[in-house]
Amino acid sequence: MTTISTPVDNGVDIEFLRGAREQLAEEPEGAKFTWRVTNTWVRGTHSQTTARGFFGLGEEQDRPQAFHFDADHPEVFSADDNGATPTELLLAALASCLTAGVATVAQNRDIQLRSVSATLEGDMDVRGVLGADTDVRNGYSHIRVTYAIDADASAADIEALVAQSQKRSAVYDIVTNPTNVTVRVA
Amino acid sequence: MTTISTPVDNGVDIEFLRGAREQLAEEPEGAKFTWRVTNTWVRGTHSQTTARGFFGLGEEQDRPQAFHFDADHPEVFSADDNGATPTELLLAALASCLTAGVATVAQNRDIQLRSVSATLEGDMDVRGVLGADTDVRNGYSHIRVTYAIDADASAADIEALVAQSQKRSAVYDIVTNPTNVTVRVA
Repeated sequence: MTTISTPVDNGVDIEFLRGAREQLAEEPEGAKFTWRVTNTWVRGTHSQTTARGFFGLGEEQDRPQAFHFDADHPEVFSADDNGATPTELLLAALASCLTAGVATVAQNRDIQLRSVSATLEGDMDVRGVLGADTDVRNGYSHIRVTYAIDADASAADIEALVAQSQKRSAVYDIVTNPTNVTVRVA
Repeated sequence: MTTISTPVDNGVDIEFLRGAREQLAEEPEGAKFTWRVTNTWVRGTHSQTTARGFFGLGEEQDRPQAFHFDADHPEVFSADDNGATPTELLLAALASCLTAGVATVAQNRDIQLRSVSATLEGDMDVRGVLGADTDVRNGYSHIRVTYAIDADASAADIEALVAQSQKRSAVYDIVTNPTNVTVRVA
């Protein structure tokens, strides 16, 4: 009996990533990346952030295009709602990091994905940011991420896929663990 | 002698926010917000996140429009660069939260802003996310935020403005302190 199987293709260049892992283990200087954005105040709570260049693989890297993100507060805070709230942007960062990880780990484990979607919810008591109660933290008390994944794999393998994505996610690490931030005025 | 002064206007409705602070201190149920996004995998490391509805002031809130964010990995990782990286989105969240805070605190302190811009840099050793060295963390080792602010205020007052924005920022809190994240598959 002859079995013809279609190669798994989630659009992730896993051979390249396996090579990069080996190469950067030997040449750790190239692994030192600096991601960078600029932010410009527009008016009120509205600002725009731009991402384009970054440093990595030992040199400054440019891209064909810049990416722009508007952020603002919504009308319930008497603001102009010209963009998502910063706290929604944070959820977008977490979501996209975990989903990129799901696709990458699936490719690494020969699992064909058909669809991946996630809903993220973050609970926040706004008495914190308003300064109404200093015992209330400013940020999220809890973030819930719920994935719906259709793939050529068992439920257990899909669970393991998501668990491994968490384990290797930059943004999951930044959110769940303390990260050092220095703020200064030039 | 008559002094005519123009009222400070940074576009922030500070009277509303002062009222909300008092009201929500008395009615803390209304202060319980849940921010929400949905994320859909496109292909490879490319996904799109959408923000629109949220829960707050005791009920579900809709907005006139949804906000969309594409994220991807860049060409140096052999990806398609269809959007900013998730780690740049995280910097955008931090930048926009601090800048909204600068505008709000300035309004509260009667400081007229003329321009506010910030550069954010985050250092990351990608051996972490690649799994090349388990002693290297996945996320940022350090984030640097540098503000340039032109305002009707002394350098010391501008420093204090930025410090107060940090103190009340949701995203600064989430990044610098541990935040609980639960991930599950539906």
